[in-house]
Amino acid sequence: MIKQVPYTSVKTEGFWKNRQKINTDVTIPKIYDRFKDTGRFDALKCKYEEGMPKPHIFWDSDCAKWIESAAYSLALSPDEELEAKTDELIDNIASAQLEDGYFNSYYIPCELENRFTNRDNHELYCLGHLTEAAIAYYQATGKDKLLNVVKKYIDLVERLFVTEGSAAFSTPGHEEIELALIKMYELTGDEKYKNLCSFFINTRGTSKKDENTRSWVGSFYDQTSMPVRELTEAMGHSVRALYLYSGMADLARVDGDKELKNACERLFDNIVNKRMYVTGGAGSAHFGESFTCDYDLPGEEAYAETCATIALVFFAHRMALIDINSKYADAAETAMYNGVLSGVSLDGGSFFYVNPLEINIEKFNTKKNFHNSHEDLLTQRVEVFGCSCCPPNLSRIIASFGGYFYSYDDSTVYVHHFGAGKAEFNGCSVEQDTRYPNHGGVRFTVKGLKGKRFAVRIPGWCEYASLNGEKLPHEPVKGYLYLDVEEDEQIFDFYFDMPARFVACNPEVDGCNGKVCVAKGPVIYCAESVINGVKKLNTLSVDPTAPVGSEPDEETGALRLRVSGFEDRADDRLYMRYSADNRDKKEITLLPYFAFANHGESNMLVWLRVAER
Amino acid sequence: MIKQVPYTSVKTEGFWKNRQKINTDVTIPKIYDRFKDTGRFDALKCKYEEGMPKPHIFWDSDCAKWIESAAYSLALSPDEELEAKTDELIDNIASAQLEDGYFNSYYIPCELENRFTNRDNHELYCLGHLTEAAIAYYQATGKDKLLNVVKKYIDLVERLFVTEGSAAFSTPGHEEIELALIKMYELTGDEKYKNLCSFFINTRGTSKKDENTRSWVGSFYDQTSMPVRELTEAMGHSVRALYLYSGMADLARVDGDKELKNACERLFDNIVNKRMYVTGGAGSAHFGESFTCDYDLPGEEAYAETCATIALVFFAHRMALIDINSKYADAAETAMYNGVLSGVSLDGGSFFYVNPLEINIEKFNTKKNFHNSHEDLLTQRVEVFGCSCCPPNLSRIIASFGGYFYSYDDSTVYVHHFGAGKAEFNGCSVEQDTRYPNHGGVRFTVKGLKGKRFAVRIPGWCEYASLNGEKLPHEPVKGYLYLDVEEDEQIFDFYFDMPARFVACNPEVDGCNGKVCVAKGPVIYCAESVINGVKKLNTLSVDPTAPVGSEPDEETGALRLRVSGFEDRADDRLYMRYSADNRDKKEITLLPYFAFANHGESNMLVWLRVAER
Repeated sequence: MIKQVPYTSVKTEGFWKNRQKINTDVTIPKIYDRFKDTGRFDALKCKYEEGMPKPHIFWDSDCAKWIESAAYSLALSPDEELEAKTDELIDNIASAQLEDGYFNSYYIPCELENRFTNRDNHELYCLGHLTEAAIAYYQATGKDKLLNVVKKYIDLVERLFVTEGSAAFSTPGHEEIELALIKMYELTGDEKYKNLCSFFINTRGTSKKDENTRSWVGSFYDQTSMPVRELTEAMGHSVRALYLYSGMADLARVDGDKELKNACERLFDNIVNKRMYVTGGAGSAHFGESFTCDYDLPGEEAYAETCATIALVFFAHRMALIDINSKYADAAETAMYNGVLSGVSLDGGSFFYVNPLEINIEKFNTKKNFHNSHEDLLTQRVEVFGCSCCPPNLSRIIASFGGYFYSYDDSTVYVHHFGAGKAEFNGCSVEQDTRYPNHGGVRFTVKGLKGKRFAVRIPGWCEYASLNGEKLPHEPVKGYLYLDVEEDEQIFDFYFDMPARFVACNPEVDGCNGKVCVAKGPVIYCAESVINGVKKLNTLSVDPTAPVGSEPDEETGALRLRVSGFEDRADDRLYMRYSADNRDKKEITLLPYFAFANHGESNMLVWLRVAER
Repeated sequence: MIKQVPYTSVKTEGFWKNRQKINTDVTIPKIYDRFKDTGRFDALKCKYEEGMPKPHIFWDSDCAKWIESAAYSLALSPDEELEAKTDELIDNIASAQLEDGYFNSYYIPCELENRFTNRDNHELYCLGHLTEAAIAYYQATGKDKLLNVVKKYIDLVERLFVTEGSAAFSTPGHEEIELALIKMYELTGDEKYKNLCSFFINTRGTSKKDENTRSWVGSFYDQTSMPVRELTEAMGHSVRALYLYSGMADLARVDGDKELKNACERLFDNIVNKRMYVTGGAGSAHFGESFTCDYDLPGEEAYAETCATIALVFFAHRMALIDINSKYADAAETAMYNGVLSGVSLDGGSFFYVNPLEINIEKFNTKKNFHNSHEDLLTQRVEVFGCSCCPPNLSRIIASFGGYFYSYDDSTVYVHHFGAGKAEFNGCSVEQDTRYPNHGGVRFTVKGLKGKRFAVRIPGWCEYASLNGEKLPHEPVKGYLYLDVEEDEQIFDFYFDMPARFVACNPEVDGCNGKVCVAKGPVIYCAESVINGVKKLNTLSVDPTAPVGSEPDEETGALRLRVSGFEDRADDRLYMRYSADNRDKKEITLLPYFAFANHGESNMLVWLRVAER
């Protein structure tokens, strides 16, 4: 049985320490202020009256994710004021909980008589997030008030959905509670939580009651079109889908359920091989915020919601707890360094919901004005959304990302992610000395592992890796190099060759033919018009045969790249004979994708044209 | 004063004779049958009752354009049956005309009390088309019944709109009558027609009454946002715009109105330099069927309505009657051989309304299903539309295209277009012996022009032209080579070098960067997936440095081309390191654009990627 090394055991330095500090110092307080301003926190008292901001059906989940973020932050750096604020929120929730265990800041004051009648109204989703928050807060502080609240609430849910079957539907319209229930099972050892999770997962797609409470888009939207074990393709609302798959992976793991694990692997493979943006972004369509079909990965119209990309990390991480295969951490790493981090500004104070791979403001405005486009373009991050799921999802994953680095079993310690810092767990310690993701050298100092194995993931993007200055001593197994530890303290000096590289896309993906994106290690790069002094970025083309320059960029903690290329030369003619020379040489500066939209209004492009013959 | 050589004086052979024969044998009868089936022709009796097909506000214009087409066809090849059918329609119109001159097959039976109250309801547009039909039929047959109908109707319009000013609006919501009134003026010499045209043109954009009867989209849509003399950019509904500009050009010509002519030239230049598809297509947006903004020429979302492209030919032709400049016939030629002819199937029996430059059925379906697209995709021509303006517009321009070839003034005969055939006019004759558009050799035999000049347009696409086997004796003036005619009968042997060429687009045009289209002479080519055995045409790229093969194609009367290129090679990977070698050599067969969608359901692409380094 593989065990996760918890985030509390991993002290980060360097790149991630910096992001975690901004998260603690800026993001978590900012979200607190916005949630206070918008009435979310006060709504937890369940005392809504006319004239107050009306609670929304998913506000509880926003608050819960903030509490969870605060818990992670408190565990890493204690802060009395933050803890007091969190306690107050929890007190309000506990006070408002109904005698029978029910809690929902929308239904209690607004339409209690209708609780558990509308499958799409997120009650179980909110409970799932409250459960995750309760566990995190209990683990961070030892305080169990919220934990007792959710235990009581889960008992009610078990009664209404399973024992009595009196709820109007059988399974949640928005999944999330499944994975939370497994967390609860693993915390308490109480099988009832696992059984309830199993009920929700195995009933899904089989219940007449759920057919009668179908969402506005159709059963594919909320993953109710067939039993989950039969799924072969990621479908519908991408956050819902990935939370479900995460819960399925958890259940498969704790039950040793091979059939369910196989379904999860099929879905994971379908996503990463057919439906994932090069940034790790998931979900191609604004319509239904959903997965669409294989190879549909439009850049400008991308949805790639921050939450969906975070959920892909959750799913990948859970799969890696069943099966040691580098494809999982490869996807999680791509998502974290790109489509997740892009969700928050470098200063930590503002957020993207949608993470496009191309911004062309002029073209968008033309489409808006003339081509009847109904989509909105957000070119700059904002401090608050009506639907504010992403900000506290970002703050919780950034605060707890240390927990994704390592896992272990009786014989082996597994290294999934790279980054300066030190982990102490299970009587051993692993220290990484590295400038990752800016440099491919990682020196591991391993203590207390003598006689066991130390397994290091060889990143999928890496074409040449060395150990202690020499080529790897043997082939990796499913992407991990297994090394016998022979000393009490042993150093493993890895080098993952990390030149800037030009990445191509499967030709089936419309819009990427003849284009490349530039990557270095796990970081995907993009061009911004404001930095390159050009209007339309598609007038640029790059020469993949020319050397790529790089320089440290303090602002991002990563590198800027300089690639050689060309800018198409314009004159007054609309049409002309083609000439390969009708262009000027141009050095193009690229930023990490996660850093786009931090330099004022700008066009942005990930997939750049390859220079013509 | 430049005079047009009428279509009746020009006998075509070769390419255009073939198209005209199909037009006469198939298209005109087919349209007749469809208009009969749909109730359009019976509606002319103005005896609509419940249970019959309800007349539409623009049906009169459809019928009128069919009558005009029949007239042109009759003039070229007499046909008693066709003439009898036409007479019957005209009889019905004449019988239904009201005492005061009014005629409209929708308003008379449906809501006569509301005539001339709704500016957007096409009454004057219908009258314009009836006027053109009446003139054409009178000129073809000498019969003046319809001419007398429209004379009486125009007199009514003059009274209601000018003398009394009792109509609810001042100028037509859909322009067309302006150019018809100048035809009437030129036929009759009666200034009242010119004056009414002048009233409509000069009142446009200045009338409070028109502001109060604004169309659904806004004043830009129907060219009412400012006085027409101030216009600098082609705006709004593209057919309306181009009919207006054609009328403006006519008025500028007959009045010698420099200011108005300058406005026309500005608009023409704006279109051909900024807003015209490489096929001559006009109008980039389905929304409002309209011109949009400079350099907005999307391929898949193109509107490029057949009627708008025909109207561009009208406008260009009229400008060439004011000013001998090859830019006008260049645009008209591009439009005729591409975006006009594409509107009708090779067999003459079915029609496109919208003429896209790219069809990607799979992508379209994905957009439709997932990206909330509201546009429709018509991948095959159809026999009848609800809005059937295009079919009879095609039949009338094809039947009368001979009338666009030549013009003359006291000193000079001008050759604007090329094609086998013979013209006899004004005491002279010009014969063209040529395989144009498939070969660039044109042997002119000119009789009766001794002492005058013979001016031949050097096509804008031609990079090398010779005369009698030698380089041109002097520079062309505004694109025309002026030659002194020294013999009673003289031969001028022109050769316009016509290799297949790769055309690039201004880099400001989104979607064309790094792409080329292939052209040969005036003909633009396209790739069809069904012919090339590939699924997605954007996986193809072409090598502009390799030789291009060609072969005659009986089906089209033009050539097929074979270009060297590549097809991207796919494997299971979604992302991979870029390699220029990850492709296979591929010979790509190209068809004339006008021949696309004649070979079954297929993707189609005009702008092809240039092969990478």
